[in-house]
Amino acid sequence: MDKAVSQSTSLLNCSTEIQAELRTLMTARTAQATAYGLHFSNLWKHASDCIADGKLLRPRLLLATYDALTSDPGKPDVFRDSAVRVAASVEMLHYSFLLHDDVIDRDLFRRGRLNLIGQILNDLDPAKLQAALNAPLTLDSNELHWAHTNAILMGDLMLSATHQVFAREDLPTDVRLRLLDLLDHTVTESVAGEQLDVGLSKGLVSSDLNAVLGMSRLKTATYTFELPLKAAAILAGTSSRVQDTIGEIGKHLGLAFQLQDDLLSTFGDANEHGKDPFSDLREGKETTLIAYARMSSDWPSIEPHFGRHDLSDEDCLHVRNLLAECGAEQFVRSLIEEQIRACFDLISSTERHFPSQLRQLFGQLVDSIVERRS
Amino acid sequence: MDKAVSQSTSLLNCSTEIQAELRTLMTARTAQATAYGLHFSNLWKHASDCIADGKLLRPRLLLATYDALTSDPGKPDVFRDSAVRVAASVEMLHYSFLLHDDVIDRDLFRRGRLNLIGQILNDLDPAKLQAALNAPLTLDSNELHWAHTNAILMGDLMLSATHQVFAREDLPTDVRLRLLDLLDHTVTESVAGEQLDVGLSKGLVSSDLNAVLGMSRLKTATYTFELPLKAAAILAGTSSRVQDTIGEIGKHLGLAFQLQDDLLSTFGDANEHGKDPFSDLREGKETTLIAYARMSSDWPSIEPHFGRHDLSDEDCLHVRNLLAECGAEQFVRSLIEEQIRACFDLISSTERHFPSQLRQLFGQLVDSIVERRS
Repeated sequence: MDKAVSQSTSLLNCSTEIQAELRTLMTARTAQATAYGLHFSNLWKHASDCIADGKLLRPRLLLATYDALTSDPGKPDVFRDSAVRVAASVEMLHYSFLLHDDVIDRDLFRRGRLNLIGQILNDLDPAKLQAALNAPLTLDSNELHWAHTNAILMGDLMLSATHQVFAREDLPTDVRLRLLDLLDHTVTESVAGEQLDVGLSKGLVSSDLNAVLGMSRLKTATYTFELPLKAAAILAGTSSRVQDTIGEIGKHLGLAFQLQDDLLSTFGDANEHGKDPFSDLREGKETTLIAYARMSSDWPSIEPHFGRHDLSDEDCLHVRNLLAECGAEQFVRSLIEEQIRACFDLISSTERHFPSQLRQLFGQLVDSIVERRS
Repeated sequence: MDKAVSQSTSLLNCSTEIQAELRTLMTARTAQATAYGLHFSNLWKHASDCIADGKLLRPRLLLATYDALTSDPGKPDVFRDSAVRVAASVEMLHYSFLLHDDVIDRDLFRRGRLNLIGQILNDLDPAKLQAALNAPLTLDSNELHWAHTNAILMGDLMLSATHQVFAREDLPTDVRLRLLDLLDHTVTESVAGEQLDVGLSKGLVSSDLNAVLGMSRLKTATYTFELPLKAAAILAGTSSRVQDTIGEIGKHLGLAFQLQDDLLSTFGDANEHGKDPFSDLREGKETTLIAYARMSSDWPSIEPHFGRHDLSDEDCLHVRNLLAECGAEQFVRSLIEEQIRACFDLISSTERHFPSQLRQLFGQLVDSIVERRS
């Protein structure tokens, strides 16, 4: 690829080529699927539609970081095609995690639209879907079981497809093995984080701040930031020290991103992020806000409302005020600042190794996390 | 490895080194897991115990085929260490499929012992396990949901671990890519087969003989025989024509194996295979026996009993007799013979390419399938 074009590629404008690559990957597999009958083919079609609807945050992070790292005139830019494919496959990994998460959480929606489970349910029996929207279906429902089966299986296919991309790239052995190490580490941490999340929600793990922070780091930060940033550093041929530093920066940015997500879910503007502004409270989700509030003297006033599906909007607003008053909101904001500070410390400690475009990208990322509204 | 030792390795006596390799793979990951807390570590311990309990059919097939293919004095035997690792990883793939199959089928047992779901349930609350054994828990049970979550996640970890082994072997690029192609094909077919199986059981796919045979081939034959046999042919450096022929032989042997399984489940001796001899009938499993019986004039006498969980042993024996009388048993036996004949045709058509030890191995395999009692 032309270096001038690559240099102008920012976090926000490398979507087109990732979308094209993702479409290529999905189209090939969807075409293959027709050999295995209508239901299998249909499953692939739904998956292709759902994945095309994603914001591509993780692949865009990967490619923007790769482009920034190879932006200096002296730096080689030989693996950009691989970077695009690996970036697209990271979206498949994300989708694999979402699918199994939706089965585990029994969700029918994702980003305000029917998820794959909801779509399969709708294909089978629109009346059942409507019933499920009014009152949750029991899991013993025959139709929901079919939809969940499909989501488990598509999650497996996406997980396999991701590994295939990582494994097949024509890269020097050490680069390929480092990428595979990173993928292995990412899958382990994300799965451990998912287990911890469910353990917290069931009270099997006591919900203290450390456990909730650990869960956020493992379940989201690793695969959302550490994976794409470090993969880019590996593909760009940086030293293993720079790879590790960029991975660390990814961990901090990822945790800041997730903490901001916790804040937005309760204190954000529903018109902007499009989610039920109080779903975390109604579902009793163990976030850092709640972990802090549990330690405050306001907890006895919050607890009776927490995790009640029938909580009125008025009661939710009341709980939200209590979460602000007890200091939970401020505390989470200070945690975010701590992560951002740790990022800047790492960036300045390695200043001479980082091209200016990379420092600029990380600055943009910090701003976009802090100013995030949706 | 010493060729003399390799030559003496038969289907039945290469278990020790596969067990050792599988233990190495699982021990490393179980040790890593301790960094992520008690529940994650516990999950890995259970998985290690469960996988150590397997019969290792698929890895033994792989290694025996590899050894037979490299048994002639002139044949190179350079990738045997890789063959052992790939063989062990095929057991992980098998375990991944079993885990997700058990979630989908809501089973608590495997080979007459508690499966991972049953073990996690027992850890959490032995009383809940007992209750589940007496009357199936609803899937909305909090405890069963935790156990299922663990099984979904461990299935993901095993699927990833399999891909890691295939991707990391230090092999010539074309060998590695062929192995990855084979793994991709295997995952696609096995998942399509699982979906078809559930579709058949729900009546979403009409249960004719073609659909049931297709399901058996996809869900079981591909990964149980085609995968190990063809992987061995690739690792042994045979021509792509021989690889394809051995893959075809694997498909026929795999289907014969699954058909024999259908027969054993209904007509086998429970004392030998240790399963409930009538579980297929009580669960309403769509096997080739049933697909044939549906076309016979005896079906109206069989149908009222089929898929009834409360069927008495006496009624089961009655249905079994009807399945014999209507010709279903004989028909399935003839299908098995057809598959075996197709194997021998392939073997004789490529006689000059196959070392004598390979022909001997395939002969042993045919005998062991036909004479299988458990």
